[in-house]
Amino acid sequence: MNVLWIFAHPEGRSLNGALRDHGAATLRRGGHRVRHSDLYAMGWNPVVGAADFGHDPADRLIVGAASERAHAAGVLAPDIRAEHDKIAWADALVVQFPLWWYGMPAILKGWFDRVFVQGFAFGVTGGDGRTLRYGDGGLAGRRALVVTTAGARASGLGPRGVHGDAEDLLFPLLHGTLFYTGMDVLPPLVITGADRAGPADHAAAAAALDARLHALPTADPIPYRSEHGGDYTGDLTLRPELAAGRVGLAVHRRPCPAR
Amino acid sequence: MNVLWIFAHPEGRSLNGALRDHGAATLRRGGHRVRHSDLYAMGWNPVVGAADFGHDPADRLIVGAASERAHAAGVLAPDIRAEHDKIAWADALVVQFPLWWYGMPAILKGWFDRVFVQGFAFGVTGGDGRTLRYGDGGLAGRRALVVTTAGARASGLGPRGVHGDAEDLLFPLLHGTLFYTGMDVLPPLVITGADRAGPADHAAAAAALDARLHALPTADPIPYRSEHGGDYTGDLTLRPELAAGRVGLAVHRRPCPAR
Repeated sequence: MNVLWIFAHPEGRSLNGALRDHGAATLRRGGHRVRHSDLYAMGWNPVVGAADFGHDPADRLIVGAASERAHAAGVLAPDIRAEHDKIAWADALVVQFPLWWYGMPAILKGWFDRVFVQGFAFGVTGGDGRTLRYGDGGLAGRRALVVTTAGARASGLGPRGVHGDAEDLLFPLLHGTLFYTGMDVLPPLVITGADRAGPADHAAAAAALDARLHALPTADPIPYRSEHGGDYTGDLTLRPELAAGRVGLAVHRRPCPAR
Repeated sequence: MNVLWIFAHPEGRSLNGALRDHGAATLRRGGHRVRHSDLYAMGWNPVVGAADFGHDPADRLIVGAASERAHAAGVLAPDIRAEHDKIAWADALVVQFPLWWYGMPAILKGWFDRVFVQGFAFGVTGGDGRTLRYGDGGLAGRRALVVTTAGARASGLGPRGVHGDAEDLLFPLLHGTLFYTGMDVLPPLVITGADRAGPADHAAAAAALDARLHALPTADPIPYRSEHGGDYTGDLTLRPELAAGRVGLAVHRRPCPAR
């Protein structure tokens, strides 16, 4: 596979940096090709602005429309187009970051804000005229693996942990961004206790990462419900007979099949 | 009240810009004082880096420790200290942004990443030696109101909507950031259908905002469970007898009292 590894840590000499180097080596040994978007090293600009679109600042900026026009005309900022080329090349994305305030560091959030423009990552239309998203879209056919480190211990990020369940906290990225644009999203690798990790913990984290990377081409994705699979009504709510009476982000996963 | 209005939209001539101006005027008419952090207008840098902390790039950067040291020594970057002064002055924060990829624009995420440093917003210790967070902490005594606009229609952001419930999507901000640092967090104002809003919708949004701002000093906050209130066990999970058998982010709210 062609793998694009997106990395958002300010310090290469960190647990995150070590895991990135280790993981890329594992992939190469497995016969895969790896390209990198090391956002801090690139000096990535995370702020969406008129200059991205060649937009005249004298005119009112409407981000969605301006980005779609600039993409269609091939005049998006060169740093955005370079990321588009990498994504077009990739069969899989690895998105790695330290969990800051229970989300992505700003430099990474701004990679999605600027790169995932309308007409490229979303807002594309299928043969039946419907806009494709949630299970289909501009980035369909690709796999995505999120790798994140958290200072908190595992129990605090579990299903009833005080911080909230990690997969719920990451829902805007996993479901709202990666699945939205059509990708198959693998369960995230959440490395907890990172602030107090010793050498044995680092080795365990590297082993856990290796296991995920070996399974990258074959692992079952999170079974999110596709928008056009019949599970949602015309007003975009889950059909009442599915996960009946329940609310919460987990209702957007299909139930596990009986074994 | 002293109100700090944090605004993260690239275009002042937008629905967001109009609402911000309208809301600030409403507050002033109500006798409150308003200061602004207009992040795009300020050219805010959202990227955490060694320069924030006067850190020698030759040494390995550990963000938490470096930020805490720099804060204690009073040598954080001047733009961060200026925001600290505004927060110290404020009785309430209004945090306003367009919902991009189901979260904050990068420029705003990076306001929290850079400004909410250890020793200021969190990592402060109470009289009993415990670290205060989730209901108490460096910013206790303040109120917070999140105002966001979304292109999606309301049903899609409801409890069973395809995008996920808006309050769940915002949990990392509402609970993991604002409540974590001790603030009383009001229910967010989510203005939906923003992409297709006409003049009547703009007027309705302004009226909804006015209602929230009138209630800013008195409205009941979201009843999140405090960490040290007895609802969590020593491993930071919700006691089994509370919200028994349930999972999902809503378990971290106390049940509504019977009326």
